[in-house]
Amino acid sequence: MTLQEAVEKLNEIEKASYALSHAQSILSVDGETVAPKNSWKGRGKALAYLSELAYRQLVNPETGEVLETILKHQAEADPVTFRRAEIMKENYDDMHVLPMDEYVAWQELINESGAVWHDAKEKSDWAMFAPYLDKLLAYSRRYASLKGPDKLPYDVLLNEYEKGASMETLDPFFRMLREELSPLIREVAAREKPLPAFMKQVWPVAQQRRFSEKLMAMEGLDPLNCTLGETEHPFTDSTNKWDVRITTHYHEEDPFSSMYSVIHEGGHALYELDVRDDLQFTCLAGGATMGIHESQSRFYENLIGRSRAFCTPLLKIMQDVFPDQMKDVSEDELYSAINLSKPSLIRTEADELTYSLHVMIRYEIEKRMVAGDLAVKDIPGEWNRMYKEVLGVDVPDDRHGALQDSHWSFGGMGYFPSYALGSAYGVQMLREMEKTVDVWGTVAKGDLSPVTAWLADRIHQYGMLKKPQDLLLPAMGGPLDPAAYTGYLKKKFSELYGI
Amino acid sequence: MTLQEAVEKLNEIEKASYALSHAQSILSVDGETVAPKNSWKGRGKALAYLSELAYRQLVNPETGEVLETILKHQAEADPVTFRRAEIMKENYDDMHVLPMDEYVAWQELINESGAVWHDAKEKSDWAMFAPYLDKLLAYSRRYASLKGPDKLPYDVLLNEYEKGASMETLDPFFRMLREELSPLIREVAAREKPLPAFMKQVWPVAQQRRFSEKLMAMEGLDPLNCTLGETEHPFTDSTNKWDVRITTHYHEEDPFSSMYSVIHEGGHALYELDVRDDLQFTCLAGGATMGIHESQSRFYENLIGRSRAFCTPLLKIMQDVFPDQMKDVSEDELYSAINLSKPSLIRTEADELTYSLHVMIRYEIEKRMVAGDLAVKDIPGEWNRMYKEVLGVDVPDDRHGALQDSHWSFGGMGYFPSYALGSAYGVQMLREMEKTVDVWGTVAKGDLSPVTAWLADRIHQYGMLKKPQDLLLPAMGGPLDPAAYTGYLKKKFSELYGI
Repeated sequence: MTLQEAVEKLNEIEKASYALSHAQSILSVDGETVAPKNSWKGRGKALAYLSELAYRQLVNPETGEVLETILKHQAEADPVTFRRAEIMKENYDDMHVLPMDEYVAWQELINESGAVWHDAKEKSDWAMFAPYLDKLLAYSRRYASLKGPDKLPYDVLLNEYEKGASMETLDPFFRMLREELSPLIREVAAREKPLPAFMKQVWPVAQQRRFSEKLMAMEGLDPLNCTLGETEHPFTDSTNKWDVRITTHYHEEDPFSSMYSVIHEGGHALYELDVRDDLQFTCLAGGATMGIHESQSRFYENLIGRSRAFCTPLLKIMQDVFPDQMKDVSEDELYSAINLSKPSLIRTEADELTYSLHVMIRYEIEKRMVAGDLAVKDIPGEWNRMYKEVLGVDVPDDRHGALQDSHWSFGGMGYFPSYALGSAYGVQMLREMEKTVDVWGTVAKGDLSPVTAWLADRIHQYGMLKKPQDLLLPAMGGPLDPAAYTGYLKKKFSELYGI
Repeated sequence: MTLQEAVEKLNEIEKASYALSHAQSILSVDGETVAPKNSWKGRGKALAYLSELAYRQLVNPETGEVLETILKHQAEADPVTFRRAEIMKENYDDMHVLPMDEYVAWQELINESGAVWHDAKEKSDWAMFAPYLDKLLAYSRRYASLKGPDKLPYDVLLNEYEKGASMETLDPFFRMLREELSPLIREVAAREKPLPAFMKQVWPVAQQRRFSEKLMAMEGLDPLNCTLGETEHPFTDSTNKWDVRITTHYHEEDPFSSMYSVIHEGGHALYELDVRDDLQFTCLAGGATMGIHESQSRFYENLIGRSRAFCTPLLKIMQDVFPDQMKDVSEDELYSAINLSKPSLIRTEADELTYSLHVMIRYEIEKRMVAGDLAVKDIPGEWNRMYKEVLGVDVPDDRHGALQDSHWSFGGMGYFPSYALGSAYGVQMLREMEKTVDVWGTVAKGDLSPVTAWLADRIHQYGMLKKPQDLLLPAMGGPLDPAAYTGYLKKKFSELYGI
């Protein structure tokens, strides 16, 4: 096979891959958002067949030869094509691990588990979800043992979401976060501020929907390319830069829960929306790793969205959308309100200071459940014990405990650490950005475009074209330094709480 | 190939067909409802590849042999399997007509045309849509010439939506409708009633959404299996009985526009929701013909939804959802308001009496445009001329004229007559139903379940299992008799207008 023949074949393989993953993606988004509840059965049949097709067209000797041919001609191939072959080879290797029947059964299981998790969460019924999690874990372990027979299973899974991540690096990372942040969390808790009066009001969903629109506009999300849906658990999904979906969840007693979901998912969306046109519809369109993806979402959510400067445009928008509720609120009161720190139950609603300890608890539980040291039935007990030990809170039920997140229901064991890593990457990117961009001056004017332009230039535009480390090092101005993250948090919350 | 081998193969083919058409269906519904506007490009790529797969897996010698084998063993095959092979053979023959590349290009064209039609309608710009309609027409003509080389092209297209329909039967059908109804329409117009004061109010969308929920509940649409979306043009789509989607369009100045869309699409949905379990995920799940499908939607919309009896529960619901707007309205005023008859511009909002003449105009235009006797550029002029001649109204722009319906944008030339045929079928079904069901007694109580049970028993449950005529004749108590339809309209509107 000549290089040119191989490249033509690669184009065909990619066309099929794109189409099948586009369909799988939209079916899933539809299932999460507007589909009737009972639709999971038919969707499962469709997804199973699509995943069979995806497997067949990727895992076959011809595809193997196509990829090998391109990979051994690095000098002659153009760099984008070469990188497409590299990433396609990773996908090929990932899928190759399991026989087709097992792969398809896994896809069917994920679809069903998602439906069951929704029900189980609603009913706060761990026993309902447990048999599914058992099966999901068995699959994950089997996959890991085949993919990396010489590695620990959880290391293999971590690597699926963050290239190069392992317990060897994450154990000290989380230990440091816990050691550095716990004393401050305790001091802050001792100076607990009361919930300001303005927050004890009703924030009708219709108004919150208008609020979302204005937030998306300020974040620079073009509604022609990106729409907002409503789901139990907020997420972002994207098929290409002209078709990005984000979701949120409204709570009438609290406008900030949905607001930070919109801004967070909007950060993911900006990443997808800014990938270069020539990478669209190829396997390079999309974020480099989940950690880097989370660095973008949490950048907007926290570093920008919870900054003092952001309170200037935010208050204007809120006073426009919620004139009664926000009548007498000042920027400083708003800044204090969106940064109230208090150990709490729900990760997605946690304040910035306590957030990474929510992640740490999940990391510790995942480590043990994947290793087989923690039985599925014992997870809620262990979850509750750790929440008490680490954050000092009592978990009233599994809906507010081990059933709160959707990740395990789609087999995403190993995903959670990306949130903490992304938060840490983001602080280092901010420090780099501040060297050339007047971040706070422009944010205070409600103009996030210089921030986004910087991130698009350093990170977004490349999709998966660059290797993760080649993307991160220049954007962060050096390797990961968790002290930058803890230092940022310590300074911010010491000031906020006068410590 | 033995019969048993053929049946096993048929199961596999159907599994693939189901999955692909499920994906195509959901991608289209998503595109029409919540997808970002620019998403059509990526969706087009996905749909093109899925249609290529659908073509490949259906159009091949093995599938041909499978179907022939079953069809020549009618005596031994079980009746459901035999009928599945019959319908699959029809699909096979339909798809076989064109080479794959043309078939796929057609699917891509439809996707793009839909997006262009939306824009063109919004801008009332026929010239924008015209080149697409030219291409759609060229495809339809080519398809018809290959499918039925001995027939007139429009007859072939009509037959796609209503088995056995032809200009030979439809010409006198529409002529009779026009001759019988035109004098009454003129008399009614001469006695024009003013719009009642209560209708000149604002009906906020949030309230209309609640209204939709209550209407759907009264119609017996289980939200676990059927959800409502919002689109420019209302429609129903279904992948199986546990996943049916209907849509509506809200107008703040008029609650009845959306209300009758919901009830109409709800009638389509009930058909899909009531098909027997053992036919689900086979090619027999779905309506027998589009005429029969429309007979169900228009049954609920008009025969029930615009009846005097229905005004009793309707007024209760409206006074609950719109307490201010409906404060002093009586059942009789409501009955008069929902049956105001007046020649108008928009088919989907037309009253029952003038409705079929809207369809007749489309039929006459389609006949000529498919035959090549009416150029695409001349359609709006001819449209406007006929609206003036037949209904006496002046069309202000193409948004309210030839661009109003989506059908041509998806190549649905030949679809429109189904609406008039369905309306006529429905009246004959009602006459049969009245022999054993206390229709008006139970409707007045807001209980539509005996009506739906009758229709489910006679029509819905069978999906495509029975041949259309075998389904229609017993349900209608005899062959099509348009006089039943015109007689029903004459009686109702003579009474309403004291003629």
